[in-house]
Amino acid sequence: MSIALVIPDRKLDSLIEKLNAVLPGVLIQQWPNYSAPELVQMAVVWKQPQGSLAALSNLKSLQSFGAGVDSIVSDPTLPDLPLSRIVDPALASSMVNYLAGIVLHYQLKLDVFQRQQQQQLWKPKSPRLLKHICVLGLGELGQAAAQYFLDQGYLVSGWSRSVKQLEGVHCFCGELGFKQAVADADVVICLIPLTAQTSNFLNTESFAAFKQGAIFINVARGAIVDDAALLSALDSGQLQAACLDVFREEPLPITDPYWQHPAVLVTPHCSAVTNVDTAIHQIVENYQRTLNGLPLMHLVDRERGY
Amino acid sequence: MSIALVIPDRKLDSLIEKLNAVLPGVLIQQWPNYSAPELVQMAVVWKQPQGSLAALSNLKSLQSFGAGVDSIVSDPTLPDLPLSRIVDPALASSMVNYLAGIVLHYQLKLDVFQRQQQQQLWKPKSPRLLKHICVLGLGELGQAAAQYFLDQGYLVSGWSRSVKQLEGVHCFCGELGFKQAVADADVVICLIPLTAQTSNFLNTESFAAFKQGAIFINVARGAIVDDAALLSALDSGQLQAACLDVFREEPLPITDPYWQHPAVLVTPHCSAVTNVDTAIHQIVENYQRTLNGLPLMHLVDRERGY
Ligand SMILES: NC(=O)c1ccc[n+]([C@@H]2O[C@H](COP(=O)([O-])OP(=O)(O)OC[C@H]3O[C@@H](n4cnc5c(N)ncnc54)[C@H](OP(=O)(O)O)[C@@H]3O)[C@@H](O)[C@H]2O)c1
Ligand SMILES: NC(=O)c1ccc[n+]([C@@H]2O[C@H](COP(=O)([O-])OP(=O)(O)OC[C@H]3O[C@@H](n4cnc5c(N)ncnc54)[C@H](OP(=O)(O)O)[C@@H]3O)[C@@H](O)[C@H]2O)c1
Repeated sequence: MSIALVIPDRKLDSLIEKLNAVLPGVLIQQWPNYSAPELVQMAVVWKQPQGSLAALSNLKSLQSFGAGVDSIVSDPTLPDLPLSRIVDPALASSMVNYLAGIVLHYQLKLDVFQRQQQQQLWKPKSPRLLKHICVLGLGELGQAAAQYFLDQGYLVSGWSRSVKQLEGVHCFCGELGFKQAVADADVVICLIPLTAQTSNFLNTESFAAFKQGAIFINVARGAIVDDAALLSALDSGQLQAACLDVFREEPLPITDPYWQHPAVLVTPHCSAVTNVDTAIHQIVENYQRTLNGLPLMHLVDRERGY
Repeated sequence: MSIALVIPDRKLDSLIEKLNAVLPGVLIQQWPNYSAPELVQMAVVWKQPQGSLAALSNLKSLQSFGAGVDSIVSDPTLPDLPLSRIVDPALASSMVNYLAGIVLHYQLKLDVFQRQQQQQLWKPKSPRLLKHICVLGLGELGQAAAQYFLDQGYLVSGWSRSVKQLEGVHCFCGELGFKQAVADADVVICLIPLTAQTSNFLNTESFAAFKQGAIFINVARGAIVDDAALLSALDSGQLQAACLDVFREEPLPITDPYWQHPAVLVTPHCSAVTNVDTAIHQIVENYQRTLNGLPLMHLVDRERGY
């Protein structure tokens, strides 16, 4: 019995230690140093290199180490096996906490005050009136965010692929729905997955549908955004500010214009990082389901791409 | 019947308009252009110039236009009349909102990420673990802050002059109590008034009692802090960061070292500004009490200084 970890560029000591504790007798093998690849039933994957699963001749299931699977399903060598993704209340609460902090950052005009501080400029201002928040994507994370802002007294609109009914949230879907969802929002938060449909979806036309002077927060995936369109929407004042946690290329290249743009706040993909302590429960459960031939929890629809 | 407004350097159109609407027939006179000073029964004051009340020969009461009265009682020409200060739930919720945003700013390491952004440096980090918040001053604003952080799941300690019992808050008072209140706090928030007792109270010795690496937030008054002591506590690492909304001299002089200190966030006295729409109720009520010879609401103890 064995699990393979195919997660490059991340320290895995704590994950391995915890798997060993909960699953004694299960061999944890780490790519690229497989000792007995034919024993592996499940692979925990994240940005796996092409071909890295080829040696696992008895593989039965795939478990993403994160909530998004775009970096997994984009691998043309990925075996056609059940793939599940992390759904974890701790991940959602970390995301909500980040969004709460970013919205307050703008509401309190900390961006303006920090710019003034650099110029030794004392100029009191009243807070920004941010009343309406739009959440693009009403899945696990989007719903948690929508509910949080609703509880805080904001007007909340939301947008998803299929129709949703969420008490208190103005829900929209489809192309026309998108324009209605964003039209009056002071803040637009992106929480849709990166798929063939959503790649470059936020382009010049989409930003033109935003309320003038809106604030944009991207915590989903960088490639959902047409970067040139975002930069020109910021430069024209169509958008007032953007907080970006995710980028087309990560680490963000040193020459990228986002770094020095005065209206952009860059955070290094930190809004919601998989928490080993809590995510391990789902990994272990899915491994046991794999051994017992049961359907995995939180399966990804490979056709839809999320 | 008349009210005098003795509030230099502030646009008062909205206050005057609202007073006229609620108190028709009451003459609103604005310093320095009194037309009939002998008619004035109550003066609304804020940083009044010395002698500015001398002409008000029939003055019966004083109403501060803010929550703090240090800039009022420091005037040696201030008549010995009942003085009341603004106590307003809207003021408290504005303060709590500011503190919530600042604590999240540090929890999410936005200070670190913004420094990294300036250097085009991509270095993901997990959030700061800020678990314990200490509130110095458990009055109207301090209690609201303590309750908020308690509700958010923080461990909260508090400190005041007299003994307090607040459910869930570890309350301390006195000199020894101060050390206990701050000893384990990750964040210390200053919400005590500026009085003869508290002037320069936060000095080298007080900062030495903080937990090493604590974050300090001052939203009370600048002169409570010995600035040289704060700067050296920041430079030595005894304090990790400081967010300052109030200063000994305001506007903060252009040469002040706080402006450019990498560990200091400067906001221009914006955490909780008197809201005319809500504060007017107390002003009107106190004016009516003045006319009727009744005790004012939210009286200041002139002896104590707050
Ligand atoms: N920055 C970070 O640290 C971080 C951490 C975790 C996750 N993420 C990102 O956040 C994304 C969302 O996570 P989640 O767990 O909330 O995903 P989820 O539960 O799968 O929800 C995705 C939501 O997006 C909607 N959606 C998908 N395609 C759409 C389209 N073409 N048009 C409109 N709406 C569409 C879905 O609509 P339906 O409801 O109709 O299916 C659903 O409401 C992940 O995919 C990941 O990329 C980022
Ligand atoms: N930055 C801003 O925009 C802004 C806005 C509003 C107010 N403020 C400042 O915030 C301060 C607090 O406002 P508030 O309405 O909460 O005042 P408050 O209701 O009078 O409360 C003051 C608190 O400080 C305590 N205190 C006073 N002297 C002390 C001493 N020597 N040692 C220990 N504790 C002492 C008091 O103790 P007891 O309970 O024992 O009396 C009380 O708990 C104001 O004075 C003002 O300077 C700033």
